[in-house]
Amino acid sequence: MEFSINNEWFIKAISDVSKAVSPNTNIPILAGIKLIAAKEAITLIGSNSEIAIEKKIPARIKGAKVFDIYQPGSVVIPSKYLYELIKKMPGDLLIKVNESHTVTIQSGEIISRLNGWNPADYPSLPNVEQAKSFHVPALQLIDLIKQTVFAVSKNQLKPVLSGVHIAVSEASLIFSATDSYRLAVKKIDIHSDVEGSLVVPGSNMAEAAKLITHESGETAIHFTEHYIVFIINSISLYSRLIEGVFPNIAGIMQIQPKTKVTLDKRKLLQCIDRTCLFAREWRNNNVNLEIQPDSKILISSNSSQIGAIQETLDVKIEGDTNFGISVDGSYLLDALKVINGENVSVKFGGTMRPVIIEPLHDPSHLQLISPVRSQ
Amino acid sequence: MEFSINNEWFIKAISDVSKAVSPNTNIPILAGIKLIAAKEAITLIGSNSEIAIEKKIPARIKGAKVFDIYQPGSVVIPSKYLYELIKKMPGDLLIKVNESHTVTIQSGEIISRLNGWNPADYPSLPNVEQAKSFHVPALQLIDLIKQTVFAVSKNQLKPVLSGVHIAVSEASLIFSATDSYRLAVKKIDIHSDVEGSLVVPGSNMAEAAKLITHESGETAIHFTEHYIVFIINSISLYSRLIEGVFPNIAGIMQIQPKTKVTLDKRKLLQCIDRTCLFAREWRNNNVNLEIQPDSKILISSNSSQIGAIQETLDVKIEGDTNFGISVDGSYLLDALKVINGENVSVKFGGTMRPVIIEPLHDPSHLQLISPVRSQ
Repeated sequence: MEFSINNEWFIKAISDVSKAVSPNTNIPILAGIKLIAAKEAITLIGSNSEIAIEKKIPARIKGAKVFDIYQPGSVVIPSKYLYELIKKMPGDLLIKVNESHTVTIQSGEIISRLNGWNPADYPSLPNVEQAKSFHVPALQLIDLIKQTVFAVSKNQLKPVLSGVHIAVSEASLIFSATDSYRLAVKKIDIHSDVEGSLVVPGSNMAEAAKLITHESGETAIHFTEHYIVFIINSISLYSRLIEGVFPNIAGIMQIQPKTKVTLDKRKLLQCIDRTCLFAREWRNNNVNLEIQPDSKILISSNSSQIGAIQETLDVKIEGDTNFGISVDGSYLLDALKVINGENVSVKFGGTMRPVIIEPLHDPSHLQLISPVRSQ
Repeated sequence: MEFSINNEWFIKAISDVSKAVSPNTNIPILAGIKLIAAKEAITLIGSNSEIAIEKKIPARIKGAKVFDIYQPGSVVIPSKYLYELIKKMPGDLLIKVNESHTVTIQSGEIISRLNGWNPADYPSLPNVEQAKSFHVPALQLIDLIKQTVFAVSKNQLKPVLSGVHIAVSEASLIFSATDSYRLAVKKIDIHSDVEGSLVVPGSNMAEAAKLITHESGETAIHFTEHYIVFIINSISLYSRLIEGVFPNIAGIMQIQPKTKVTLDKRKLLQCIDRTCLFAREWRNNNVNLEIQPDSKILISSNSSQIGAIQETLDVKIEGDTNFGISVDGSYLLDALKVINGENVSVKFGGTMRPVIIEPLHDPSHLQLISPVRSQ
């Protein structure tokens, strides 16, 4: 293998696929990046047992030549050293690999050698030729992920809850996540030829959102029984699926609100952020909401050790007043952070019933939080 | 105690003095900030057993009123919660303390309460009334600290080496630091009425540099047998001194260079930075320098595990050539990072003699590094 390449595109690709490389893997070769030099593209792959990222560098970008292949081939190079070295190398690079997988990287007067591995020992990517597929605009996919992924369960007691549920049908795409104390749901309209219901590990979805953030255009989503692949421009992200039955959320979402409060999202967010300072002492970060009759909501928290806080917000109230409810302040904060728009509506079904938070006049996005025992 | 204060100046002062507060102190009251409200200034103090920072907020800043005192007094407030809370509080604050040291902080509709401590239990600041003193411009003091402090010993085997040595005389001020493998010295011309030789803990000097960075003007330095105080504008930083005899560096610095190499600092820095990647496997980060006869220096490192690197730099050589020396690459990097100017001169006394690095034509700053056994 021998090729020359523009340093800037190479470092970008290494950085992208490195996100799938676990530095402390039990399988030594997975600490490496697989590099395949072919005439039409230089391909880089990083992977662990959960996720794989593949990036193709095309021969020309915006009309300018990016690389020259003198001899096609492939090798696996330790990810950490490759990234650190290339980041510190100036200008264009000449990269050669000999028969014992030693990689020589040269730039002007600088000559460096990295010990590589046999590419034949690197695991293959999942085969998704028989996969079903549909398309989503990248910007919408980022919203779908960010507005749900934080709500997945952080422990593995019920593995299926550590994933984001994706339900695709002819006309809609719904992402949902729950740790059984809260639920986040986001729905968009699409046109799809396929139907499917799958659960993707939350951490992999978060990684997908990060990768997509730097790209624009359509994302192609392919899925089989065991894998899902997100493809956008020259990047592909492969994730395993989680087996198991995701809870039916349709029932949970149908609550009959007794009270609906409309208020400024930024003000509520800042208020809860302050209140949470005093809520940490409680196992559930207890924040108390008190719906008062005179278009006011009193929000408070107290800690025997630190002190206490309370503040009153002016709101619009429809329905019952004069009752209180305690919720986990950090859950409320998470939900408010991902809601778009200036105003939110908060719906209460009663002291012991879940609270539903929605962007005002936008039923496509819902955040549900169960109450906690008040102090 | 009762006063109102502009949120912005208050948070800045809390942030400044917090730097001296250790969150996990054994002495509970030292986790707090002492607050003293008096007509002419609101004073904040943070301290641990090593360092104390005092900040005075004047009643007027740039002609605008900063606070109103309704009742003078003092209290100690847990630093962490005070900082986090005030950062999240909007606008002006009304602060009251009752007899049981409970602090009420109010801003509009927000009312918060923090449990405070009795200010009488807070340790007094060292008395420096009988101190000797001299002045240094803040910008020069920052250079003096930054160009030496990194070279202090990181362990406490010889406590005196964990400090920066300050030698003040009528006409000069010299800062030096050594961990016995390297030495950093910076000298400036001053006019002083006092003479002294003191050793200040390196970590405290680093903290002083950080505090001074945001200030401008003259720094007054007061010192007694046990303490040093840096005073700039409204901030005072108190540090204990380290007892013991600092090594005499005059002898170490007088080497007879056999070879003097002049080269571009930035190029050398980037080269050493790359070379260090392959030097980590060695206990001393061995980087090899080879002075070649044709105005070239070959810099290399190799690691059995990772690989190797070598590069050639064009330099100006005076004196002997055709010899090699190994040094700790991370020490070389540290030294080059703090040297000002475009070019450096590197002086060699021989394979087993220390290397001296100086900014070209500037004898006020010197970095000396002992060689390591070559591989």
